[in-house]
Amino acid sequence: MSKPSALPPSGFRDFLPEEALARQQLVRVIADVYGAFGFRPIALSAMENLSTLLGKGGGTDNEKLIFQVLKRGESLRAALADWLSAGRPSVDGAVDTRGLELADLGLRFDLTLPLARFYAKNQSTLPRPFKVFQMGPVWRADRPQKGRYREFWQCDVDVLGASELGAEVECLSAILSVFQRFEFHGLELHLNDRRLLAALGRTLGATDAQWAEALICLDKLDKVGADGVIAELQEKSLLSGGGLERMREILGRTEHAREDDWQGVDGESVNSIRDVREILASAFPRVNVRFNPSLVRGQDYYTGTIFEVRHSEIAGSLAGGGRYNRLLEIFGGQATPAFGGSIGFERLVLLLTEKGLLGKSANDVKVFFPLLAPELRADVVELAMGLRARGIGADVYPDAAKLKQQFKYADERGFRYCAILGGDEHKAGVMKLKDMETGTETTVPLPAFLSTLETLCKT
Amino acid sequence: MSKPSALPPSGFRDFLPEEALARQQLVRVIADVYGAFGFRPIALSAMENLSTLLGKGGGTDNEKLIFQVLKRGESLRAALADWLSAGRPSVDGAVDTRGLELADLGLRFDLTLPLARFYAKNQSTLPRPFKVFQMGPVWRADRPQKGRYREFWQCDVDVLGASELGAEVECLSAILSVFQRFEFHGLELHLNDRRLLAALGRTLGATDAQWAEALICLDKLDKVGADGVIAELQEKSLLSGGGLERMREILGRTEHAREDDWQGVDGESVNSIRDVREILASAFPRVNVRFNPSLVRGQDYYTGTIFEVRHSEIAGSLAGGGRYNRLLEIFGGQATPAFGGSIGFERLVLLLTEKGLLGKSANDVKVFFPLLAPELRADVVELAMGLRARGIGADVYPDAAKLKQQFKYADERGFRYCAILGGDEHKAGVMKLKDMETGTETTVPLPAFLSTLETLCKT
Repeated sequence: MSKPSALPPSGFRDFLPEEALARQQLVRVIADVYGAFGFRPIALSAMENLSTLLGKGGGTDNEKLIFQVLKRGESLRAALADWLSAGRPSVDGAVDTRGLELADLGLRFDLTLPLARFYAKNQSTLPRPFKVFQMGPVWRADRPQKGRYREFWQCDVDVLGASELGAEVECLSAILSVFQRFEFHGLELHLNDRRLLAALGRTLGATDAQWAEALICLDKLDKVGADGVIAELQEKSLLSGGGLERMREILGRTEHAREDDWQGVDGESVNSIRDVREILASAFPRVNVRFNPSLVRGQDYYTGTIFEVRHSEIAGSLAGGGRYNRLLEIFGGQATPAFGGSIGFERLVLLLTEKGLLGKSANDVKVFFPLLAPELRADVVELAMGLRARGIGADVYPDAAKLKQQFKYADERGFRYCAILGGDEHKAGVMKLKDMETGTETTVPLPAFLSTLETLCKT
Repeated sequence: MSKPSALPPSGFRDFLPEEALARQQLVRVIADVYGAFGFRPIALSAMENLSTLLGKGGGTDNEKLIFQVLKRGESLRAALADWLSAGRPSVDGAVDTRGLELADLGLRFDLTLPLARFYAKNQSTLPRPFKVFQMGPVWRADRPQKGRYREFWQCDVDVLGASELGAEVECLSAILSVFQRFEFHGLELHLNDRRLLAALGRTLGATDAQWAEALICLDKLDKVGADGVIAELQEKSLLSGGGLERMREILGRTEHAREDDWQGVDGESVNSIRDVREILASAFPRVNVRFNPSLVRGQDYYTGTIFEVRHSEIAGSLAGGGRYNRLLEIFGGQATPAFGGSIGFERLVLLLTEKGLLGKSANDVKVFFPLLAPELRADVVELAMGLRARGIGADVYPDAAKLKQQFKYADERGFRYCAILGGDEHKAGVMKLKDMETGTETTVPLPAFLSTLETLCKT
């Protein structure tokens, strides 16, 4: 067999130590912040039965995104034999209609559908409301592009079983607190409500079908601008006359939209948006919390509040989500109101790393022990173990290699101290200690070594 | 479409909050301990090109274990069309010989093969030696059984690019330190060397082929006992006469094996085992560190030291690994000596949970705010945010539901304090504080609430 490639598959990534440390750090911050709000973690299977992923909640749009897992052994043989014996098989038909069922499992493409399945199974034993968070990878068989990967992490936070806007406030506070932990500036929280959007469609004189398509146009506002949206609505005859004019007016005023102006369209959702906005604006004075009547969000399962967290300097959103009061029914659970959101982990870790807000304190190993001779190994290992037992990271070079090589390693890793035990030091019962920042060398008697390092490293 | 199942696929698991918290806790401890030794994390793609997984390092034995991912779109259509056009296709032949190539990707079945691929790609930019750890899920298409899952976590720690036994000492110390962190008793570290096993085969008069098969028998010692191993060796004519007698003697003496008795078989490996044993026995006085000449380990890529961590009370091993000086060459990297080990995360989390050593401090949210009326929400949210900013976890009930329901929720979650703000309290500018452990209620003026709770929760 020829030499296999050393690259990960197209669209997949390996993370080097600096990147992996930054990711590990962010995962901990998010878990701690969510935890401080009373949200509790769950961890769900990466793989789902294909029937789960292709069910109503997933929708046919998602079918192309799913990495399907080939059946194994006898099941695969049976699927192929069935297909062959059904006459002259057509490849196109087989693959497009799934008359040829080659796969039985698939990788999850988000964390919400698995949550709905999990909740249907476990809701009788879970507290109500259930405040829950999930962090982990999802997989999408998208065509890889710059910045778009086939494996990426999501961080979801949800309240299941609460119908009032307290669910919105708790989830959104938790999400904004994650950003706040990093003293992040320039954040905007955009709020809207699907009920308001639906009422708007009726007000503007669109049919349900026209309006569903119009919302897809509206969702492109970020990319094509107000003129682009209006042009597309006109071209596709989705709005006309006064409706189109009103829409143009709305798009022009999204920057300074006031709920009061919308009271006549749908009072209930307008009041809810205002209450959420006022509570969050007061709790997060540095975040620009806004009502944005042109916010749509992609998924079609939203039934109420929707939101996005954006940053003035970057395109796209850092977090998003909404209320989905009907989704939990698809696996046969009881009707359960639900609200949830997701932080885009990949974009956030990138942004935080660029701004130097992650990874700074990542290298917490301060002391390096070169190994000058094999017979000194046991002594060096014991001293290093003593440091670690006191909470001080220590790295021992594994081979008695050339000292130049060992110090090159130490330089690259950026240790603060080198603790050098050679034959002479061993005989004299001392350790040579080099401060790598100042370059100064001192000699420490071995019995005082651990306490000396403890004082040095912890002050 | 009929209602999809609410269960995860067969062999896969969902983790409830208590389990997920315990896992999260253990992941952090392992990362912190490995980190204190100077090991640094990497995070590799969950998916590999199938050619990587089926390469020499994977081996045909692993082929059946791999979850293969179906090709997508045009590639899948082309694979099926090729197969059909090749005449009258045979299902058996197609599936068994992979003449029908339906899959192009596969899920990783361990973390070592991906590490070898990663190292071949990145070794020029990585420090040498490279001390590295990985934690994450792997997937195996095994038939599910009690205690054997198709998705489970591994925690690998490796030193790449160091040939001396310092690599062994650092990896094994890091692994044992994880167990030590939980004050785990009854641990045994079993050490052996593949070079010694190979020399033993020659000493006992077995051919290479006989001995390779004999080692597979020997590896079953745990399951079938010494008599079972001897019977199988005899039955399969893998050893005979004096060789068989000597083997019987070895198996009878594994409990008290001394390296010195083995000096004549292979001096170099015996000295190495002794040095590693002595250093670790001294660093970990509570662990029974032993030379075990019957230890084999499954993988065929080991070239030197091999080890297992066992517990006197349970079957199987808690950790295992060895030296694999040739594996890193398969992806075209330079010849690189390597040693590594893996903690069986699933077995360890189970054992620690059973012993009550995990999850104790998991519920760190101490203060619960019931919501007595919607108009009090903003005040309650503000107080809760104030607590969280001081590092005190707080949970706000999202709906102004019946108080009985809210207190049921609080009871189940086990909060320490309930902070109750009703209309009367609001008017009087106070908060009612209930200590859920003692049942006592006090009244705290609102301006003093945050500092009072800070004192209560942090002492």
